Amino acid sequence: MALLETITSPAALKALPEDQLAPLAEEIRQFLVTEVSKTGGHLGPNLGVVELTIALHRVFTSPTDTIVFDTGHQAYVHKLLTGRHDFSKLKKRGGLSGYPSRAESEHDVVENSHASTALSWADGIAKGRRLRGETGRHTVAVIGDGALTGGMAWEAINNIAVDKDLPLVIVVNDNERSYAPTIGGLADHLATLRTTRGYERFLDWGKRSLAKTPVVGGAMFETLHGVKKGIKDIVAPQGMFEDLGLKYIGPVDGHDEPAVERALAKARDFGAPVIVHVITQKGRGYQPAIDDAADQFHGVGKFNPETGLPFEVAGRIWTDEFNEEMVAIGAERPDVVAITAAMLIPVGLDGFAAAYPDRVFDVGIAEQHAVTMASGLAYAGLHPVVAVYATFLNRAFDQVLMDCALHKAGVTFVLDRAGVTGSDGASHNGMWDMTLTSIVPGLRLAAPRDGDQVKKQLREALDVSDGPTVLRFPKGDVADPLVAVRSAGDVDVLFENAGEDVDLLVVGVGAFAGLATETGEKIAAHGRTVRVVDPRWVVPVSDDVVALARQARVVAVVEDNLVSGGVGSAVTRALRDAEVEVPVHTYGIPKRFLEHASRGQILEDLGLTADQLVAELEPRL
Amino acid sequence: MALLETITSPAALKALPEDQLAPLAEEIRQFLVTEVSKTGGHLGPNLGVVELTIALHRVFTSPTDTIVFDTGHQAYVHKLLTGRHDFSKLKKRGGLSGYPSRAESEHDVVENSHASTALSWADGIAKGRRLRGETGRHTVAVIGDGALTGGMAWEAINNIAVDKDLPLVIVVNDNERSYAPTIGGLADHLATLRTTRGYERFLDWGKRSLAKTPVVGGAMFETLHGVKKGIKDIVAPQGMFEDLGLKYIGPVDGHDEPAVERALAKARDFGAPVIVHVITQKGRGYQPAIDDAADQFHGVGKFNPETGLPFEVAGRIWTDEFNEEMVAIGAERPDVVAITAAMLIPVGLDGFAAAYPDRVFDVGIAEQHAVTMASGLAYAGLHPVVAVYATFLNRAFDQVLMDCALHKAGVTFVLDRAGVTGSDGASHNGMWDMTLTSIVPGLRLAAPRDGDQVKKQLREALDVSDGPTVLRFPKGDVADPLVAVRSAGDVDVLFENAGEDVDLLVVGVGAFAGLATETGEKIAAHGRTVRVVDPRWVVPVSDDVVALARQARVVAVVEDNLVSGGVGSAVTRALRDAEVEVPVHTYGIPKRFLEHASRGQILEDLGLTADQLVAELEPRL
Repeated sequence: MALLETITSPAALKALPEDQLAPLAEEIRQFLVTEVSKTGGHLGPNLGVVELTIALHRVFTSPTDTIVFDTGHQAYVHKLLTGRHDFSKLKKRGGLSGYPSRAESEHDVVENSHASTALSWADGIAKGRRLRGETGRHTVAVIGDGALTGGMAWEAINNIAVDKDLPLVIVVNDNERSYAPTIGGLADHLATLRTTRGYERFLDWGKRSLAKTPVVGGAMFETLHGVKKGIKDIVAPQGMFEDLGLKYIGPVDGHDEPAVERALAKARDFGAPVIVHVITQKGRGYQPAIDDAADQFHGVGKFNPETGLPFEVAGRIWTDEFNEEMVAIGAERPDVVAITAAMLIPVGLDGFAAAYPDRVFDVGIAEQHAVTMASGLAYAGLHPVVAVYATFLNRAFDQVLMDCALHKAGVTFVLDRAGVTGSDGASHNGMWDMTLTSIVPGLRLAAPRDGDQVKKQLREALDVSDGPTVLRFPKGDVADPLVAVRSAGDVDVLFENAGEDVDLLVVGVGAFAGLATETGEKIAAHGRTVRVVDPRWVVPVSDDVVALARQARVVAVVEDNLVSGGVGSAVTRALRDAEVEVPVHTYGIPKRFLEHASRGQILEDLGLTADQLVAELEPRL
Repeated sequence: MALLETITSPAALKALPEDQLAPLAEEIRQFLVTEVSKTGGHLGPNLGVVELTIALHRVFTSPTDTIVFDTGHQAYVHKLLTGRHDFSKLKKRGGLSGYPSRAESEHDVVENSHASTALSWADGIAKGRRLRGETGRHTVAVIGDGALTGGMAWEAINNIAVDKDLPLVIVVNDNERSYAPTIGGLADHLATLRTTRGYERFLDWGKRSLAKTPVVGGAMFETLHGVKKGIKDIVAPQGMFEDLGLKYIGPVDGHDEPAVERALAKARDFGAPVIVHVITQKGRGYQPAIDDAADQFHGVGKFNPETGLPFEVAGRIWTDEFNEEMVAIGAERPDVVAITAAMLIPVGLDGFAAAYPDRVFDVGIAEQHAVTMASGLAYAGLHPVVAVYATFLNRAFDQVLMDCALHKAGVTFVLDRAGVTGSDGASHNGMWDMTLTSIVPGLRLAAPRDGDQVKKQLREALDVSDGPTVLRFPKGDVADPLVAVRSAGDVDVLFENAGEDVDLLVVGVGAFAGLATETGEKIAAHGRTVRVVDPRWVVPVSDDVVALARQARVVAVVEDNLVSGGVGSAVTRALRDAEVEVPVHTYGIPKRFLEHASRGQILEDLGLTADQLVAELEPRL
């Protein structure tokens, strides 16, 4: 790593002779493969942008110029080139964030890992700089082809394109892994690039790749890649972006560093909004990452750099329970359909998709459309299951409320990665979902505590046809089965050491049922009467929970969600409405953004371990 | 109205001889002008779609075929043609809704008045019908050019365009009132229509109109209207929608009913997704509505049908206070900029825009982009004010959270029409905003109680540069000034009849400060000790509120927001955290959608009058 070690800043990179760039790229790839194999992290996306990132930092002068990475998981090379060489604790407490981080570096701007935001950020930054008279500063947004399917990217393009003296460069990182490795009908200024060596090389590669084009998920991709139109349209002077008024440069072979530099320099000097269409290969230079078809190298756990296989075969995760049951349900219920926003495998719809390909819709990174389309499907007599990460439902709150709930649409939302996720940092935690969905009129929310409950409650949700239902469960290994000692109406009693009245009623929400039980058992062991329950359906608060609270001197609610507006709040309000005067103590996530660390570390920080809860609760009894 | 009276269903319309259609259209226009002048409502948009709606119901067979109206405020003609002729109580309790309503008619599908959703609804409905084997049923979405700026419309187009056997017709209602009356570069199948009489007539009109083209707000419009490209591109065979893979028919003169029928019939029989580009004139046939430049006929109060002027000159409204102060602040603070999502005048940014045209950004119907762009502007050293209706901030929750708050961006959100708005129905009430924004870490929320406080708190908000701030106030006449009797830290005391301890502390939030005071005074008159306060900044809950609560036996919070997760919830939690054991009673909006009625009627239904609050509270003291 002799070269990489010398690159402690973008200035050092700029000073590097051109013939050293290819060796540097090689060193960076070796570094990434070696390091990410130890820590886990996003490998494929970063291997794909090595030359692009080198070129960006040679053509632009960060932080005077601002480089905004959409989604941010492809910023590892950027981190290296801006002097951050210690990846040993990547995504761990005290180590580098998996995304850009302002606390880490003045070269980092946008920390948000939610997609499709970079163009809006860049629009604001560029217009702000111009208003302040800072005319020498360029703004660059780097956005993937996938992120362009998100509506807010279009909203931004619509605004950027008309501003003819805005120095803003949009780099479309069109990587062959997400969809098809071809180019496309938007090729506007292609003619000027057609004679460059880089382009010719690329064109050749593009032709060869056309044969293995997989099915694509959206019209934008067909345009971008020209699949349907074929090679003929590559030379058409007219394209979608041009129609919108944007200058277009490309396509450029993203692994031909000098070609990328030339395109970026041209864009930089143009003085108006311009799109640079760069074709990259996800996983470039690392065969296991290239070969992998199932997108598992998008974000990996620890893996063996030789084989590309994970070191540890993961155990059974929550998602697996959902995945399996969907396949079974699909056979019984032809009205059940599924929707994913570009996350078919991660959300566990691959089983259903394989069995019932006509009944699954991948809409791209388009949560808003997913939810409203689901409302339309429900209107047509089907029961859609919208499966998304909990954090991404934030994108579609209005649609859940106004399209789904207002119209009493029987749609089931399955929220994976709910609660503290940990290492992916602040914007991946699913800590707002229960608060958001619980203020939607008519919506019912289930938080299954184990794999059996995932399956059972999924079926219960699918039986609700007069309004939205939500199922939410966390990331990672599914909880050990927790068998109820008895039922109290809809509520499962998990532990009790008394008959009627108890000192303490612990309400365990979803995956925290285990934590609640452990806490209750410990307090019981200290001589108190305790009952621990899992309400299963936590919103709205059931009469059974109210009845059980009447029999308790103190109620505690333990939830893997914001305490503000969570289940604890709803229980408090329900008890007040029922004039049950019993103190309710709620334990969950406080209203602040969580730094990246392991889930266990964060839960401990938040006091969400049995010992800490015992210490908190006992003085209140 | 001899003809209109006979049209009691779409079947009756279909049976009408062609030569009766123009007289029918004339009757409908007269009816709308006469009736809407009495009740208030959306006049201009409906006058513009008379022939289009007639053609829709003659070509398609509702409800077998489904017609989805985006935003829905142009559905009055649809209501008439589907047999709803009594407009006497439009938007009033017991009368017709101002939007489609499933309770009113089997011909109504989408009730939501939020823009840009129709394509997603239609995509879901069409795909659902196909899956169920209901092949004879067509789906039509009618969407305005303005609504196409919304990101979710693009998400939908991206999905619809690739589905080549989906019978889905997208009618783009391109009305000259929102932007420019021309046509555009997306003209794909124009050649086939160029020889039709309708098109020739339209082309002539389009040429004449080009001269008076106003400034446009987005690139999409330039494409749609061809302003920059001129007449030459009208005949270009390539366009943006074509690039995306959609068949394009148009442009069609939307007031030439037979031409619209022909285009729709062609689209209906095509069997694949197709866009029909219809040019209409907002306010068509009613000169005052056509002449009006400031979009006041978009949705009007009661007006005189002869002059087009409102009958009653409205009093000073909340928006005026904001409008005026922004102009003053703009002169003092060059760093203050403003953003609106296609609502410059309604949100009161017209004064600022006139004074500082370079510092206001109209981004189109694109709330997501607005918020993230604002975060970028803040990063560049400016202080953006994002002014939107409270209900539309729902569209950008993720961006407020992840782009603005996570990055500690000094952005001020000014939420107009917060709380119960009334006659516009369920989807216009701004009843979720305080709950949503109060779960955003670091966000501070102010609810001004009168005009002076709007101005004062706006300035206070603009002094906060390390995180988002929110100012929210209701629709309509600004509240009478309420002068504080004293300050208790940050809190204004509005009434008290005792020194330290009181029986009751009433916390009045924002515009409900008056209601809180009236309630407190009445209870005091019955012999209780009472203190009424306005916390001014309601999120986070201030220590001053906690200190005052310590001096009370009972606390009541009165807010014009959902009780779930509102200020009352936050006060409850703050008191519990501070171990202040005092019962908190919260009065606000319950978790259900509100039917259209006047604001006063709704508040009375919800128990939010002084007498009702007195009756509720006194037994608890």
